[in-house]
Amino acid sequence: MKKANVVIVGATGAVGQELLNILSERNFPINELKLCATSRSAGTEIEFQGRTYIVEETTATSFKGMDIALFAGGKASLEFSQAAVESGCVVIDNSSNYRMDPAVPLVVPEVNPEDVKWHKGIIANPNCSTIIMVVALKPIYDVAGIKRVIVSTYQAVSGAGKEGIEELTGQVKAVLNGQEYPPNKFSHQIAFNLIPHIDIFQDMDYTKEEWKMVKETQKIMRDEQVKITATTVRVPVYRSHSESINIETDRKLSAAEAKEVLAKAPGLIVQDDVANKVYPMPLFTSDKDEVFVGRIREDNTIENGLNLWVVGDQIRKGAATNTVQIAELLLKYDCLMEKR
Amino acid sequence: MKKANVVIVGATGAVGQELLNILSERNFPINELKLCATSRSAGTEIEFQGRTYIVEETTATSFKGMDIALFAGGKASLEFSQAAVESGCVVIDNSSNYRMDPAVPLVVPEVNPEDVKWHKGIIANPNCSTIIMVVALKPIYDVAGIKRVIVSTYQAVSGAGKEGIEELTGQVKAVLNGQEYPPNKFSHQIAFNLIPHIDIFQDMDYTKEEWKMVKETQKIMRDEQVKITATTVRVPVYRSHSESINIETDRKLSAAEAKEVLAKAPGLIVQDDVANKVYPMPLFTSDKDEVFVGRIREDNTIENGLNLWVVGDQIRKGAATNTVQIAELLLKYDCLMEKR
Repeated sequence: MKKANVVIVGATGAVGQELLNILSERNFPINELKLCATSRSAGTEIEFQGRTYIVEETTATSFKGMDIALFAGGKASLEFSQAAVESGCVVIDNSSNYRMDPAVPLVVPEVNPEDVKWHKGIIANPNCSTIIMVVALKPIYDVAGIKRVIVSTYQAVSGAGKEGIEELTGQVKAVLNGQEYPPNKFSHQIAFNLIPHIDIFQDMDYTKEEWKMVKETQKIMRDEQVKITATTVRVPVYRSHSESINIETDRKLSAAEAKEVLAKAPGLIVQDDVANKVYPMPLFTSDKDEVFVGRIREDNTIENGLNLWVVGDQIRKGAATNTVQIAELLLKYDCLMEKR
Repeated sequence: MKKANVVIVGATGAVGQELLNILSERNFPINELKLCATSRSAGTEIEFQGRTYIVEETTATSFKGMDIALFAGGKASLEFSQAAVESGCVVIDNSSNYRMDPAVPLVVPEVNPEDVKWHKGIIANPNCSTIIMVVALKPIYDVAGIKRVIVSTYQAVSGAGKEGIEELTGQVKAVLNGQEYPPNKFSHQIAFNLIPHIDIFQDMDYTKEEWKMVKETQKIMRDEQVKITATTVRVPVYRSHSESINIETDRKLSAAEAKEVLAKAPGLIVQDDVANKVYPMPLFTSDKDEVFVGRIREDNTIENGLNLWVVGDQIRKGAATNTVQIAELLLKYDCLMEKR
């Protein structure tokens, strides 16, 4: 099998670390590996499969001779993706910079793997909440069509990076000790609280996170007729995003049929045995690559209604796992670029 | 003004304590006050307005000469409400025992105050999540009609009483110290987790809590044509329940119109200034008697759609405040019973 030269941009962050874990776990066929980050993190030593790598500062020449660049997120792809593409290195970008660019495929391998094939050098990895939702929506869509989706999220603090995790821990301790710990990463105290506000506010008072769930889902599913409305909420949970999803399908699907369809779908695990208190919970879905679905119920307020409770690790399937899966598709479909 | 003889059944629990606070804060006109509880709590001393009361064991004779009995919850009303009514003492019951009884009014004073008038001795106080929701739904219903509601809840641990609070605190400390703290009050660990399961599972795999939000809302709003579907979730928050509510109205209501209508409604406070990061959060709505609403947005996936984020203290407005408000209506409408 062909082995690829892989560069990770942002190797020292939470997603970067997880990319390394997943490349290793999935035995991704690596020929040469290069780890890059900002100048601040350059020099950091990272172990990978028994070898020590020294993190380099990302520059325009970092991509020379490389096949695939995994960008962990942030602004780096704005600065360096063009240089990567010009070197013949395919960029898989975790940031939101190119997701809605019509020239860039936005890919969830369980949903639209073939979209990898028309890339022009950049492939975008969707928003974490969006990935987790579409993995559960797609099998329903395929058998019954989807008219409308109403989603309310319960998003973990690690969606805001390591600082989000530290803020929750520090703040919980402070509150229990009667001390102050002013919010920094989040707009308000997150310990023992909920914040119905993720990312900036945009059109119609929806947040950017809420619009991502609408527009990215339509692009990934290649169907703008699927109507979606979202309310996104930060919760004091470390890891894994949860979503309460109400779906109106085109044709009737019983709860039993929905369960059967979801159980057969790739990347999904049905946890729905309420008699034994089995349903997905963020504490137990973290560090897993699959999306978990339960509380599958018919919603009889409309003719073709369904309610689902969906949970997934937003750093794994919501970011790093999905990115590595896209890299695997690049090899499978043999659509790397010529090195220049 | 007429003063009433009031007995509290379950005076030593969380709701009982809050009933006392609220009777005092609202200057409820009390002539004689009697505090009752199970034999286990009998003998407890409780201060109220500068006097010390000794909690008595509830018996069939506890209601002799009393006008109003406030039952804090649980099974006590099954055992004692008949004795109370036979003594000519009106029962206001916080439990779910009589809520769906067609002979018992189910009352939220902001929504259906007049229903107090046809009581036959018992008036039921609705489920906490239901109360918080209907206070926000009613003003919308009155101006635009409501076809359908999709609600996802984020419910605080104090909904499960003092033990729920202790379990969250103990478990959070244990987790941070790397120790075990097995779940007891909740089905699973609640610290840093979400549990999509409140009360027992019933028809169609919905929980009893979810069905309460459907059936009680229809009864309170006196309209079974309002279709409701609910997903109820326990979150690691101490106090105040939050709800993401999607509404389909009969006639179009703009976000601006909805805000205006909600701002004028009794018992509701609009907190919706996203530019200044103002929206309701459970941390800041606790110990308040009002229901708070924000994130008011048009949902353009349907013709007449609205999204709201609603938060309220489930021990205050969701239980004790609503109970005392019903007692106030009994005096206002002069519909106490003849003592026997």
